[in-house]
Amino acid sequence: PVDLAAHDPLATPLAPGKKKKTRKALSDQGDELSELQRRLYAGTPGERRVLVVLQGMDTSGKGGVIRHVIGMLDPQGCQVAAFKRPTEQELRHHFLWRVRRQLPRAGQVGVFDRSHYEDVLIGRVRELAAADVIEGRYAEIVRFERQAAREGAVIVKCFLHISPDRQRERLLARLDEPTKRWKFNPNDVVERRLWPAYRRAYEIALERCDSDEAPWYIVPSDRKWYRNWAVGRLLLEALANLDPQYPPIDYDPGEQRCLVQSS
Amino acid sequence: PVDLAAHDPLATPLAPGKKKKTRKALSDQGDELSELQRRLYAGTPGERRVLVVLQGMDTSGKGGVIRHVIGMLDPQGCQVAAFKRPTEQELRHHFLWRVRRQLPRAGQVGVFDRSHYEDVLIGRVRELAAADVIEGRYAEIVRFERQAAREGAVIVKCFLHISPDRQRERLLARLDEPTKRWKFNPNDVVERRLWPAYRRAYEIALERCDSDEAPWYIVPSDRKWYRNWAVGRLLLEALANLDPQYPPIDYDPGEQRCLVQSS
Repeated sequence: PVDLAAHDPLATPLAPGKKKKTRKALSDQGDELSELQRRLYAGTPGERRVLVVLQGMDTSGKGGVIRHVIGMLDPQGCQVAAFKRPTEQELRHHFLWRVRRQLPRAGQVGVFDRSHYEDVLIGRVRELAAADVIEGRYAEIVRFERQAAREGAVIVKCFLHISPDRQRERLLARLDEPTKRWKFNPNDVVERRLWPAYRRAYEIALERCDSDEAPWYIVPSDRKWYRNWAVGRLLLEALANLDPQYPPIDYDPGEQRCLVQSS
Repeated sequence: PVDLAAHDPLATPLAPGKKKKTRKALSDQGDELSELQRRLYAGTPGERRVLVVLQGMDTSGKGGVIRHVIGMLDPQGCQVAAFKRPTEQELRHHFLWRVRRQLPRAGQVGVFDRSHYEDVLIGRVRELAAADVIEGRYAEIVRFERQAAREGAVIVKCFLHISPDRQRERLLARLDEPTKRWKFNPNDVVERRLWPAYRRAYEIALERCDSDEAPWYIVPSDRKWYRNWAVGRLLLEALANLDPQYPPIDYDPGEQRCLVQSS
């Protein structure tokens, strides 16, 4: 059973140092990340792809991770999908319908900014579906992710874990800074008051939907520099384990060399 | 009438200096680019969006522009679409069908790596459709782009102009470097032999599909540093002209501040 109270949002497990050193460690691994991504994009055999799922309360830093970590990658090989409140059309379909359509194509690193987990998080807390429907979704999610893994996806799910105090600070910062006000929504306060219910919903989702094919990682996120480094590290490890290789070529380079030179 | 022979692929019009200085100028404009992109993404009123169309012969640097210029943006606000040889499904539809589906969403900077222009380039050179069908496409493209502009898109079309000699060099480099061989395709040599036909097809497309709503820019691209700077500059100007603004807020920041603080 997952007990989020036992995970300190301020912790920095395995960090290579404090703020400065850890930031540098993230940027230092840019070349390795790029090289692995290039091989994946080049068409490593096996329809391989990577999916990073980002979940967390408002202000936990999903956008920051995308900017600072995914921003290190080549845009040619990235697909970011943000899952906002479902549209009318989406609501007429099964909850996984819109998610399946956004799965990364072979060779790509896909990022989900929120995901199908919303359907067992806000869905559960706000009772957006009948209780038994919600209950059934956990097993559906596990099956869905297992299928995606079978089709070549390496799945890394990150729960960006922040404290309610840190959230208050960050919400106030959004209100105080005119260029950040667009990020604030009065509904954020309503959701914030439901913190214990969300924490519980996260605990259940993290517990029931953790699998070998699609593990959950609890990323302490009160410190932005740690959060970015940690997600970068998880992405790097996922890519390294996938071990992408340039695809075999089906022509003779020497022969083609002659043809190019004489053309 | 467009005469590509009159455009030197080695030229560097308006460049702020040579290689080193020009590269620095590109990276120096990163902050301005980010700020403009953030405002666009924040939801500047009017469903505004940007579309950058990249066209050019093999090795002209479409991928390099995406890595070095689009890579400066926040991935949250970017959508890259690569148009390869149409699939069976795509071929059953009108040639603009797959293109329309990839138009950037409001708030996004969309990038087309190749585009609907292939249907009047390779389509024309290789006679992939009847002559009168091809002829009709120019007007269809102009209407299509005008409609996209009416729906809020600022369109910037870049023809990355290289010389045949530079292409030979770059193809040989792909063959000589094992990590680049996957980028080479024996068909590249076949296409290369059709250079004069492609040049003519480009001239016709640049001429007939240049419009106020969607202008074509001929970007001398024999020098990578110039090419990257020039496309970055065009993107910056497009964003600056669009002049995105943070959207108006529909709540009282002071009131929300109290609610957050007491929660």
